[in-house]
Amino acid sequence: MSIPSLLMFSLLFVTSSASDHDFCVADLSQPDTPSGFACKDVKKVTAQDFLFRLGTPENMNNTFKYAITLASAVEFPGTNGLRLSMARLDIAPSGVFPMHTHRGANEILFVESGTMTVGFISSDNTVYSKTLNKWDIFVFPQGLLHFLVNSGKVTAIAVASFSSSRPGLQFLDSALFSNSLPSEVVEATTLLDPKEVEKLKGVFGGSG
Amino acid sequence: MSIPSLLMFSLLFVTSSASDHDFCVADLSQPDTPSGFACKDVKKVTAQDFLFRLGTPENMNNTFKYAITLASAVEFPGTNGLRLSMARLDIAPSGVFPMHTHRGANEILFVESGTMTVGFISSDNTVYSKTLNKWDIFVFPQGLLHFLVNSGKVTAIAVASFSSSRPGLQFLDSALFSNSLPSEVVEATTLLDPKEVEKLKGVFGGSG
Amino acid sequence: MSIPSLLMFSLLFVTSSASDHDFCVADLSQPDTPSGFACKDVKKVTAQDFLFRLGTPENMNNTFKYAITLASAVEFPGTNGLRLSMARLDIAPSGVFPMHTHRGANEILFVESGTMTVGFISSDNTVYSKTLNKWDIFVFPQGLLHFLVNSGKVTAIAVASFSSSRPGLQFLDSALFSNSLPSEVVEATTLLDPKEVEKLKGVFGGSG
Amino acid sequence: MSIPSLLMFSLLFVTSSASDHDFCVADLSQPDTPSGFACKDVKKVTAQDFLFRLGTPENMNNTFKYAITLASAVEFPGTNGLRLSMARLDIAPSGVFPMHTHRGANEILFVESGTMTVGFISSDNTVYSKTLNKWDIFVFPQGLLHFLVNSGKVTAIAVASFSSSRPGLQFLDSALFSNSLPSEVVEATTLLDPKEVEKLKGVFGGSG
Amino acid sequence: MSIPSLLMFSLLFVTSSASDHDFCVADLSQPDTPSGFACKDVKKVTAQDFLFRLGTPENMNNTFKYAITLASAVEFPGTNGLRLSMARLDIAPSGVFPMHTHRGANEILFVESGTMTVGFISSDNTVYSKTLNKWDIFVFPQGLLHFLVNSGKVTAIAVASFSSSRPGLQFLDSALFSNSLPSEVVEATTLLDPKEVEKLKGVFGGSG
Amino acid sequence: MSIPSLLMFSLLFVTSSASDHDFCVADLSQPDTPSGFACKDVKKVTAQDFLFRLGTPENMNNTFKYAITLASAVEFPGTNGLRLSMARLDIAPSGVFPMHTHRGANEILFVESGTMTVGFISSDNTVYSKTLNKWDIFVFPQGLLHFLVNSGKVTAIAVASFSSSRPGLQFLDSALFSNSLPSEVVEATTLLDPKEVEKLKGVFGGSG
Repeated sequence: MSIPSLLMFSLLFVTSSASDHDFCVADLSQPDTPSGFACKDVKKVTAQDFLFRLGTPENMNNTFKYAITLASAVEFPGTNGLRLSMARLDIAPSGVFPMHTHRGANEILFVESGTMTVGFISSDNTVYSKTLNKWDIFVFPQGLLHFLVNSGKVTAIAVASFSSSRPGLQFLDSALFSNSLPSEVVEATTLLDPKEVEKLKGVFGGSG
Repeated sequence: MSIPSLLMFSLLFVTSSASDHDFCVADLSQPDTPSGFACKDVKKVTAQDFLFRLGTPENMNNTFKYAITLASAVEFPGTNGLRLSMARLDIAPSGVFPMHTHRGANEILFVESGTMTVGFISSDNTVYSKTLNKWDIFVFPQGLLHFLVNSGKVTAIAVASFSSSRPGLQFLDSALFSNSLPSEVVEATTLLDPKEVEKLKGVFGGSG
Repeated sequence: MSIPSLLMFSLLFVTSSASDHDFCVADLSQPDTPSGFACKDVKKVTAQDFLFRLGTPENMNNTFKYAITLASAVEFPGTNGLRLSMARLDIAPSGVFPMHTHRGANEILFVESGTMTVGFISSDNTVYSKTLNKWDIFVFPQGLLHFLVNSGKVTAIAVASFSSSRPGLQFLDSALFSNSLPSEVVEATTLLDPKEVEKLKGVFGGSG
Repeated sequence: MSIPSLLMFSLLFVTSSASDHDFCVADLSQPDTPSGFACKDVKKVTAQDFLFRLGTPENMNNTFKYAITLASAVEFPGTNGLRLSMARLDIAPSGVFPMHTHRGANEILFVESGTMTVGFISSDNTVYSKTLNKWDIFVFPQGLLHFLVNSGKVTAIAVASFSSSRPGLQFLDSALFSNSLPSEVVEATTLLDPKEVEKLKGVFGGSG
Repeated sequence: MSIPSLLMFSLLFVTSSASDHDFCVADLSQPDTPSGFACKDVKKVTAQDFLFRLGTPENMNNTFKYAITLASAVEFPGTNGLRLSMARLDIAPSGVFPMHTHRGANEILFVESGTMTVGFISSDNTVYSKTLNKWDIFVFPQGLLHFLVNSGKVTAIAVASFSSSRPGLQFLDSALFSNSLPSEVVEATTLLDPKEVEKLKGVFGGSG
Repeated sequence: MSIPSLLMFSLLFVTSSASDHDFCVADLSQPDTPSGFACKDVKKVTAQDFLFRLGTPENMNNTFKYAITLASAVEFPGTNGLRLSMARLDIAPSGVFPMHTHRGANEILFVESGTMTVGFISSDNTVYSKTLNKWDIFVFPQGLLHFLVNSGKVTAIAVASFSSSRPGLQFLDSALFSNSLPSEVVEATTLLDPKEVEKLKGVFGGSG
């Protein structure tokens, strides 16, 4: 088969004109929209935009003895618009990842090391809970309260995958006790004791 | 349990880094996109952005004796991107809300006061119609012709919810008779009599 | 214009063959799917399937002094697959609608009567709160903790619209305290005091 | 390179276990769902399921002198769930495809032969209209009234593509005049003259 | 019926305030987003924005003897955000449209003239193939390898419809052989012979 | 606070009536639909349904020296309808995971151990490639050809997350060479040499 080079150019021209929007790497300096951030100019996109390192996390010297390393569209712009993102969770021995929800994503957790007891609570208040070890994966449906407890003797590490590039993360305690939400509203809408609310507002820095 | 304040800061820092895009209040001065308006800077968003008052409507001194108060993303930017919006409908005695469609949303109508006979027509030309009173709700599937008739003796008021922050609203008469659509096209594609078309073009301000 | 009746039949035959799936009223006796319930035979669908009465609610003699009347796809099959549903909320004087989330829907609340102070907490723990009166509408974004407090002197009534025919509803207290979730897990993942957990498990019927 | 046949079998086994749901050909004997019909057993699917012939249409001896050949999920089960379908339109000289909407799909029309003047009317009542010839394509956004007029001297034929496997089709005249919708409702909600309504009910077979 | 002109103005004002976002014609000078390009100012939109001519294609003097005329959002901004676009394919006698995929869309092909043998390969490696003539339409599910062969004696022409305004187009040969993908990677991940890779890199302009 | 037990029952009754469809575990014995498999009866769902073990894979004694352990909706029914699934990939030293696509999902790869060089090719034939080590994650956009090469000295293991519970998997070689696709079609649409096609059909078990 003879393929004159002139014809080849014709072929190549045609194929490249269809090449837009295989991806939309976030340009965080441009406006955000309901579907995600505006796209970085494709001519400036490199392989580096699709790589993120879930490396050594910050220390776990907080109340609950955990660390979280987020890789959603803000931290990892290559996930923008892809309906997918990740996070790394580290939990020290006797630590927990506290009760929380993701408003915008389902989650599958992959246990990389250690042992953790995890669970979620459904709308009819059923508890679905399991103890997981390395290679186990577990589903947390969108928007339901869930938790992770390190039930082993070493640091437990997991990689969470989310069905959104911006899953959201609402910690129950921070939502209730770290802001100006009036104590009487917290008390009336949760039945928590005023002293308990006062104590936890102290822990989490809330006022009001 | 002892919780040194230093550790608390670590906790709080972590929780706030996950806080983007719980919502996307419309910034109407920025570009519109297929998924909605670009988002207002979250630091400038206040509770006021999520509040709208469906208060006293404009008068109902028009041909059909109705008033509509829209609360879609343009009027109520807090709904932008949320796949949800509202409108208030007032219909004076012997008035109607004329035949229309919403190109982009299903609708549930809540009757706040009065009595109205409503209905929609399906693709196979079946009429689904009911007379509604206060506390009744009724479904109008997306894109189908529907209507509301005040069948009581007082002004009837309803609140419509839509499955889009921009449901669209096409009034049949305005679409046919208030613009430059040539009369012969209207006549040929609807079989309406030329005199009828001329009369209604007069009523609705159409030319051509 | 002469229109022989034979030709008319031809026209009608053509138009009716396009008439499927304007809606998908739930047939609760058939399987559920990720997109909703299987559809009721369209030949059995009547206008009644699109009507629901948010009438007099059950009594409000519970701890929080509220009542909820749901109109999602299970209770109101006409909303199945339409990305829209409703609920009526009644709150007695000094009552509240307790802290909760909807895993699957944004919400717009319409205040039908009375006065209520409502609010939601965003992922970065900001509180967005307003006091509402009749004709006010307020947005609660999907999956975030929110609450309603009757801040008037009479029963307050609202109609909530959701961006899903099955929005889900998770009450914070019921999720934590009405089931077999071990008390030590609740305590470790929320920092609530063991005595507080014990007390609320008593109130909400939890074990473990 | 040597590739023992034993190893090959291992390879093949692995590749075939990932093979579900590239498509979901409709099994019309099974239940319909909000996302479309249940799928035909993939083992019974053949290439024939993906082929449809938009061949010679029925005659155009109706009032408007057009014929439509539908290829949506009901007629062409291979499109089920694919968010795409087609239809063929034939319009005789001096004929039209009457005023109509598609509740569930955007449309692009490809003119295969002849000349037609087409247009749609937007929500703000602007008319977007063009005269098209062979190889022209034209967009009709979802849910808006639109029409086609044969403005040439021979039969005009077009192929319409829709952004849904079930776009819906509501003819304006059939919706208003071919059913039991009470004449006084038609009159009040459209301002059409009672005599005009009576005449068109006669043409389209309506009662009431 | 008397309709004072003052009342008419009230009617018209009301109807026009609902008129946003029936469509979102791409403004290619503004940012791209995950949901598509930002919208052209609606006041500058004309009927011309919704028209595209799939006219005479470029010559077919390339290796495979085909031409493609794209009408996706980049070439035809009126399709932006509409989940629908088109392309025209011309294949000379003894030519083919080479093996390729569309990452973002299902396709229905309409054969406008000539005869072509087309097919796709499913995830379980089944071949679904048919020979098509004028008026035949054929479905290619999203993301699967497919091909078209002119199996007649004259140029074959088809119009492809896609379920996205930006379907993407990846030619197998161009992906493997027209870039800097190292030959040893191509060889190891496809088992192609080094000489074959070298030859095709020569044809398609690849290096490495 | 006194909370009579009678009132408590009222509260609990109300909360449980909202509890449907937090998830839709696949019931593989029921029909498949475009949105996924019909749901298992929620009363039979247990925590076990949300757990999967990506344990020791099958051997890697195949041509490419890899193994894949799938956890999509068919293997892991708890992911059904959740727009999320996983797979484990093992690649022996000097092995590769061959050139392939996922028709229905974006992917993020997490490297659990070893070193691998991965890459994808965009529609404009640009190669985006990186060498990854433990804790690195990398994005592969939907439907684009991509590959993984073990570029270290030990077995490399990765966990892939997909933005669909049924991502699909099409191996390039299997698609071209393991079925009855006629050799002349392969040759014409890829320009591969007939001898090369014959050789690879031998390797992958193709006929024709």
